[in-house]
Amino acid sequence: MAERKALPIGVFDSGVGGLTVLKSLHEELPNEDLVYLGDTARLPYGTKSPASISRYAGQATAKLQEQGIKLLVVACNTASAVALETLRLQMDPLPVIGVVEPGAAAAVQARPRGKHLVLATEATVGLHAYRDAIAGIDPDAHVDELPCEMLVALAEEGWTTGAVAEAIVHRYVDAFKEGDFIPNSVILGCTHFPLLREPIASAFDDDVTIIDSASTTAAHARELLASAGLLHDAGGSLRFMATDGASRFARVGGMFLGKRLTRADIEIVDL
Amino acid sequence: MAERKALPIGVFDSGVGGLTVLKSLHEELPNEDLVYLGDTARLPYGTKSPASISRYAGQATAKLQEQGIKLLVVACNTASAVALETLRLQMDPLPVIGVVEPGAAAAVQARPRGKHLVLATEATVGLHAYRDAIAGIDPDAHVDELPCEMLVALAEEGWTTGAVAEAIVHRYVDAFKEGDFIPNSVILGCTHFPLLREPIASAFDDDVTIIDSASTTAAHARELLASAGLLHDAGGSLRFMATDGASRFARVGGMFLGKRLTRADIEIVDL
Repeated sequence: MAERKALPIGVFDSGVGGLTVLKSLHEELPNEDLVYLGDTARLPYGTKSPASISRYAGQATAKLQEQGIKLLVVACNTASAVALETLRLQMDPLPVIGVVEPGAAAAVQARPRGKHLVLATEATVGLHAYRDAIAGIDPDAHVDELPCEMLVALAEEGWTTGAVAEAIVHRYVDAFKEGDFIPNSVILGCTHFPLLREPIASAFDDDVTIIDSASTTAAHARELLASAGLLHDAGGSLRFMATDGASRFARVGGMFLGKRLTRADIEIVDL
Repeated sequence: MAERKALPIGVFDSGVGGLTVLKSLHEELPNEDLVYLGDTARLPYGTKSPASISRYAGQATAKLQEQGIKLLVVACNTASAVALETLRLQMDPLPVIGVVEPGAAAAVQARPRGKHLVLATEATVGLHAYRDAIAGIDPDAHVDELPCEMLVALAEEGWTTGAVAEAIVHRYVDAFKEGDFIPNSVILGCTHFPLLREPIASAFDDDVTIIDSASTTAAHARELLASAGLLHDAGGSLRFMATDGASRFARVGGMFLGKRLTRADIEIVDL
């Protein structure tokens, strides 16, 4: 086991959004080596067919397996919703974590029988990934799902605070401040949205719990590695691979990671 | 020539944005049959390599050639910038029109030696398509190019008027209200942006000319067909093909076209 402990954790996303998950993993597990792969040449996954998404995710996983990884984190809501079981077979006996299950579990734990509002992309909402995951844990929970595509563009543009961010968030969520469904839990169900935590939180009352699936996924990864005796204590490196666009990856990804990246930090790979 | 006159005009885009061009063509040429193909399965083109874009555009053109068309309109700025010459060879001797050249020509005509601000996607700005096209016609012109990705999301969300649209437009363009480069012409250099003409125009002074490349492309198509004796007088039908996502195409595309579309109006094709 000594050797396996020292292997990196592989993190996969269709683009740069999963870097919010990488950031949380790095904070939660500062002594683990992390290797990230963004399939930027084929994003967005959300508009692709499930068969294509599974195939792409399988190719990305194979590339990470070549590096030798001890755990795969699928830091992409669409791939988590569509391809998690396929990737578990491919990685067997090594573990695979998606972002949807930890986020759903954390929401239920914070608000049993709660009223959960899922903010996500159109693709994730269409798959009802969080609704189904929450229903599987807490049948008494109420869930509503809201597609918020503009928040993705907002995060990628880096306008994460200020008047424009506030106006857009309010336009999406003000309908949930009164009426039949007033949430007590708001799930950031897209890897881009942790960047917008501040304007989202301030659009709701203080007693609404904000669930960040990046940090809940990182906490779940720590628990899983600890229980398997696979925690490492001498790493901490970050590696970045992408399938296209090193400059854009560095510029936008740097914001998501909260750390300056340059073009030279990104290795372009073929899948 | 009688037979060729009656053939439809083919219109191609990576997604639904080109429907603003289709709308302008239908207004300018109400007696022409129009057939539209959106390569929605592979959008966005802007992040792909030039070789991939050329290949995809060639496949889309071949599909439209199968329908029998008399003119191809490339209603996609990225494909116009990257693949126009390749597509001209493929369509030869039939004509091909892109969106960049008519927009650039109209801007120069309206404002000789002008100061042109091009609002476009990051991809189009990176290719300097409008800057180079304008420089080729009017070497004394000044051009600045501004990537405005949020405007794409704004148009697709349908928030084309109101406080959010105004706040976003102002955040982009207010830097051009004073300083060294104050434009007297603003080019809507993305097929999505004609939907946002109102908030964009109102963010500038009244003496700034707004150039809509959708309507200038339609005007150019009419001139070209007229001079070739290929104008039809008994058509007017619209047909829609897409490579994925009929529901989303109908919903978002309907806004771009300014006409209600249903899922059943969209034929899903393989390229």
